[in-house]
This record gives sequence, C-alpha cells and structure tokens, in this order.
Amino acid sequence: MSSSVSPLAPKNVPEMPVIAGVRLATAEAGIRYKNRTDVLLAIMDKGTAVAGVFTRSKCPSAPVEWCRAKLKGGKARALVVNSGNANAFTGKTGRASTAMTARIAAKAVGCSESEIFLASTGVIGEPLDATKFDGVLGRLAVSAEPGDYLAAAKAIMTTDTFPKVATATVKLGKAKVTINGMAKGAGMIAPDMATMLSFIFTDAPIAPAALQALLKAGVEDTFNAVTIDGDTSTSDTLLAFATGAAAEHGAPKISRASDPRLKAFVKAFNQILANLSEQVARDGEGARKLVEITVEGAKTKASARKIAMSIANSPLVKTAIAGEDANWGRVVMAVGKAGEPADRDKLSISFNGIRVAKSGARDPSYDEAQVSEAMKAPEIAIKVQLGLGKGRDRVLTCDLTKEYVAINGDYRS
Amino acid sequence: MSSSVSPLAPKNVPEMPVIAGVRLATAEAGIRYKNRTDVLLAIMDKGTAVAGVFTRSKCPSAPVEWCRAKLKGGKARALVVNSGNANAFTGKTGRASTAMTARIAAKAVGCSESEIFLASTGVIGEPLDATKFDGVLGRLAVSAEPGDYLAAAKAIMTTDTFPKVATATVKLGKAKVTINGMAKGAGMIAPDMATMLSFIFTDAPIAPAALQALLKAGVEDTFNAVTIDGDTSTSDTLLAFATGAAAEHGAPKISRASDPRLKAFVKAFNQILANLSEQVARDGEGARKLVEITVEGAKTKASARKIAMSIANSPLVKTAIAGEDANWGRVVMAVGKAGEPADRDKLSISFNGIRVAKSGARDPSYDEAQVSEAMKAPEIAIKVQLGLGKGRDRVLTCDLTKEYVAINGDYRS
Repeated sequence: MSSSVSPLAPKNVPEMPVIAGVRLATAEAGIRYKNRTDVLLAIMDKGTAVAGVFTRSKCPSAPVEWCRAKLKGGKARALVVNSGNANAFTGKTGRASTAMTARIAAKAVGCSESEIFLASTGVIGEPLDATKFDGVLGRLAVSAEPGDYLAAAKAIMTTDTFPKVATATVKLGKAKVTINGMAKGAGMIAPDMATMLSFIFTDAPIAPAALQALLKAGVEDTFNAVTIDGDTSTSDTLLAFATGAAAEHGAPKISRASDPRLKAFVKAFNQILANLSEQVARDGEGARKLVEITVEGAKTKASARKIAMSIANSPLVKTAIAGEDANWGRVVMAVGKAGEPADRDKLSISFNGIRVAKSGARDPSYDEAQVSEAMKAPEIAIKVQLGLGKGRDRVLTCDLTKEYVAINGDYRS
Repeated sequence: MSSSVSPLAPKNVPEMPVIAGVRLATAEAGIRYKNRTDVLLAIMDKGTAVAGVFTRSKCPSAPVEWCRAKLKGGKARALVVNSGNANAFTGKTGRASTAMTARIAAKAVGCSESEIFLASTGVIGEPLDATKFDGVLGRLAVSAEPGDYLAAAKAIMTTDTFPKVATATVKLGKAKVTINGMAKGAGMIAPDMATMLSFIFTDAPIAPAALQALLKAGVEDTFNAVTIDGDTSTSDTLLAFATGAAAEHGAPKISRASDPRLKAFVKAFNQILANLSEQVARDGEGARKLVEITVEGAKTKASARKIAMSIANSPLVKTAIAGEDANWGRVVMAVGKAGEPADRDKLSISFNGIRVAKSGARDPSYDEAQVSEAMKAPEIAIKVQLGLGKGRDRVLTCDLTKEYVAINGDYRS
C-alpha cells in the first residue's frame, strides 16, 4: 500500500536457495489489488510434516480455524495464501469459502483436502469470493517451480513496504539441511488490512510433533516478543513445513524435539524466527526507529516480559522515541502501570548505553546533550534494571509516528 | 500548554457557589511556567473529613505516598497543589520536598503537618524546589477567600485546554448541602507532564470512613472508566473534603456510607465524578471525538469492562475514529484480543445506533454512506453486544489523532 520502503528495511536481501520437496508459484487473482500478485501456492512432496501456531484471538479468522483443525493430521501437501482479503468475521460464508478453496487446491495438487493449509490477509468482514481461485490454482500447480521465495514473499504483502525472507543452512547429522522462511506484517493488525503471516520451509526430516514443539518454543522469544501497536490480529498464522527430502542424502529422521542431533538446526531455526520477526518490527506502520527493550533484574522472566511489553505498548514512550526524546519519566510510568513487582528506588534506566536514571532518580551524571544526540540513531535500545531478581526479557517494537495515525486514520478517506 | 481549546469542551461553565468551611487562593510561584498561576492553597475549617484514592502505579510520586500515609488520620486542614513539576521519581529529594512543603503549609495555616495534603503535577524526574513555597503559602493563607473555584481549577492545569469544574446542591436530611469538584488531566499521563488530579469539596457532615467508602465506590464507573491512552500516571490523585459546616443549619451527621439519608447526596456526588471524568476525556490530548464504548451481553460486568477497555485502548480503533471510519473489523479484533469469553458468531456491533455487524458477519442492511455520515459527529457511541450473558459496562475515551503524536513527540523539540 505504501510506496516508500521503510528506512529500517534490511540493507541486504539474502539469496534464497531452493528447498528440496517444495515448489512455489504466484499469480494475480484480482482479489482486491490490481497489477500485483496476490496468491501464493506452495506445493510440498508427499510425507511433508507440518506444525503451526496461531493468533490467540477469541475471534479468529476462518482460515485460522481451518488450519487448527487440519493440523491434527500432521501432514501437508499444499499451502494457499491470498492477500487483499482476510476472510475474517465473515460467518458461514467464510467457512464455505475456506472449504471451497481447499477443494479447488486439493484437486489442482492431487491430494486430500485435509492436507491443504490456508492463510488469508487483508480486509476484515468482506466475504472472500473463492471462485476466484478456480482455474488460477490449477495453472499455478502446473507452473510451480522449486523456487522464487522473494516473489512468494511479495505476493503475501499488504501494507508491508518490503518483502521479508531469511535462510540458513546447517548440519543435521552429517547432512546439510536448509531452512527458508518468509513473513508479512506491518502492524499486528494493519489498516483495515490484517495479519502477521509467516511460513518456514525445510528439507530436514522432522516428525510433526517434534516440529510443533520446536515451533512453539521458538516463537516465545521471537514473534511473541514483537509488538507494533499491541493490537493482535484475528489471523496471525505461522506454519512450518518439513519435507524430509534431506533424508535422501543422509539426514537422520528426527522424532523428538529434544534429540541432541537437532542442536545446530534448532539454533538456526530460532535465528530465522528472530530475523523474520525483527523484520516485521522494522516494517512497523510509519516506523522510523527500531526499539529494543530489555528488562533485567525482574522477579521472573514472565514478569520481565510483562514490564517490557508495558513499555513497548505505551503510546507515550513510543511518541517520545519518535520525537527523539529520552523521556525516561514515561518509562518509569510504564514500569509502574505494568502491575508487576517493582521498587521505584531501585530502578535504573539507560538509552543506547547511556544511563539516565539510577536508584529511583535522575542519574547524577545525566547529560542532556549527550543523550539527545544518542536518540537520533535509527535503533534505540532501552534497558531497565529493576534490581529485584534474575528475571530478564527482551522485546522489539518501533516508534509511534504521525505516519502511523495517517496510515490507519486516513485509510478510507 | 496548548493555545486552542478542545472542540469537545463543555459549552457552559457552571457558576461555582462557595462551600462553607473552605477558602481558596492561587499564586504564581514560577515553578516551571511563566505568567500563569501554578500553586493552589485550599484551607479547610477544623473538623474537615478527608478521603482519597490514588494511582495504582508501582512507582507512585512522593506526594501520592505522602497523602496515602496522612489519610489514616482522616482529618484535613489544607491542600497544596502545584503544577509544572510532578515531584515523581525524585528519590530522597522528593520525600524531603514533600516534607518541607507540608511544614511550610502547616505553619502558614496553623495546623499539624499530618493535616496537610499535597498534589503535584508536571514534569517527572525533576527535583521540586520546595523553598519556592516559602513566603508564597504564608501570603496565600492570609488572602484565602471562600472562593473562586474556576481560578483554582486553572492553577492546577498542565496540558489541559480548559479548566474542569462541576457543582451540585442537594438535600441531606432537611438541609441543603453543596458539592464542588475540579479536575485536571489531558492524558492519563501527559507530555513529559503528568497526572490526573481531582478535588471534591462539600459542606456535608460526613465521617472520613463513610466519605472514603463513597469515593471508592464512585470512581469505579467514572474516573476508572476513562482512558485517554492507557498510560496510567505515577501521580493520579482524587481527594474529597467534607467540612461538615452544613451541620450548623441542620444537616445530619453521617457516619456510614449506607445511611439511607445519603441517597440524594450519593447520586449528586457520583454525577460530579462522572461529569469531571467526562471532561477529562473531552480534553484528551489531540482529541477531536468523544467516544463512548458500551459492551453488553458479557459474562460479567468485569468481563465487559475488560473488553470495553481493550477497544478503548486500541490504537487501530482510535485512529479509525479519527479518520471517521466505522471500521468494525478493528472492533472485532479488539474484542478478540481482550482474552475474555466471546463468540464471534454471536457478536453484533453498532456505531451511533446504526448496526454494522450482526451474528458474526457484516449486517445485511449495512449502508456505507449512512454510516460514514454518522461518523462525522463529534461524539461516537460504539455498542458491542456479545450475546453471552448479562454483564454490561461503559467506558469513555477519545480518538487518536496526529495532534496526539505531535503533542507527545514534538514536546522537547
């Protein structure tokens, strides 16, 4: 939707290798946008394991409900993603639409409907006309190739200003395995548009239950530790697909997440989740600053997370950062309102390594000019030391600018 | 700070009568502002009962801690309020500053320090120089008069664009009693500035415990049901003073909040709290729309409150209203993320009486043009029907505009 790329976009886009057992194709189905791709079909070889985590919204979209139900089988043959329409809050029509899309995709790919996974992103409450997929998915199934992941990442964008991809190659046993990931999202929910979506593909032979355990553990400090505006989408979907093709050149088959041979893989997998979720924060609507908030010395990690999120979601902290103002009084406010154990007189706060507050008052060495200079950087690290325990956590967010209000308020006008 | 008055300001300011037993005076102490009053001294006759409720912040300001400690005595002789400096997060210096202010005030008024109540509003983390009150409070004690409440309300303003007062006269037994109130606040915490403050004065003879019970019950659906930005101040203070002077002309002495003779008084008291808290929402930073959110059919009132607050604090809902966009998809999102029981397929939503969503999908009779017209009004009522139970609640907020970001982001520049 936006024409200018976020100034926080990564400088380099990695070359994305192919993943054996995965073929991709994109098309213009004209769901809402004109002159851009809006459908992605990913076809996976037989035997591909699937895992997924979804929005905790009490009002999830029809595709989220579909995926949750199909995940029980643990097997996937295809993923269909469309942008432009979220198929959320569409009632019975929405359920009929997911069923029809799956039917069309299953026929095109030649598999069971229960092996089809779906994700939709875009406007909420607008019925999704699944007949638009008829014909399109059949053609895509024929033309699908091992891969242009960047083109795939572009087809699923809504208000994103850049496509988000990441890749890693690591050893599993003595074999090389590859992990590719893509994501979209520029607000937890974006202007009238919606959704954070992310898809991970690997040729590693990992059983569904093990993959699910890895994914669930991996999101905790990556996707679940990112907030743009505190507004959780109805459609957040993160799916991981493991084709197992690397078994052919000697990768061991993994059935438990705790398998020690997975060590390098888990590290790379989590780095990809961290990389993609950071890119989401870097493309936050209207963002001009990437903000990392670290809370140390909390009673527990959960307590540190709650305080870090209270800071990250505070409009007053976020507007201060947009104004390049090291307004630590607002950080104190956000710590205080989190409801977690905190002792004002033990609190220390720093911005980009410069301590501004110490033991519950302004740091005696505070130098306004020095701090103001530091606040001009495009990346701001806020560190809060509570001095109570060993709980530590870190979350990522962005600043709150007039552009955020413009993107989300001027949308229909 | 702002030069233009909020377009949502009340059209009429009431004539404020005097309250027997209360004298007021204001002065320019030059704490931060130039050419405006920034200190208020209210002197109460002997025997005045006091009650108070305060911020739930874990990092409260020094004056909040002072008041909490002194409240145990239940008696008040004076209130000192300054604007320009919140005396929050000021460590030992802050505590010394409140003690010195109370000492100066007690000497000026001729009472015990434990009968002095203090409130400060303004910048956080800046030491408050209490010596500025020396001399000033003595002169104010001499000049204090029964009252210009509007002048008092002006002296405690920070980023407020208008002074907030309310009054009511009701029968207590066969005697007339009067209640006067004032408030300040334009964000739960405002730009670098801070605080919601409110003070209520009455001549009714109500014992401290009864007054405290009334106040605690009264704030639940008034001040606690208002949010500007979800950011709770370190300094929120609401104090009520009952001089008891009306006993002289026959008002009965009240010792229990449940006394049936209090019925008319309680109603008027709660209306004043509602009136003042609505004025705070009307003066929300950058606000152009007053937004009332009603949630019905929840499992409980507490559940309805949580959902209503999730909607009221959602930046995406608030920016949509600023853009005059009846974006009910974002309301669905905010209901879904609240974590409270909700059933998407039973959900109905209306904007200013026009139903836009019904039974989990767009209302079949939805007319975009009609709704768009309704969204141009300065007051927007969002009603959500959950269809689950009898829980109902209502909260007030305002829209999120570029001016909010400007006020809070451009402050130092």
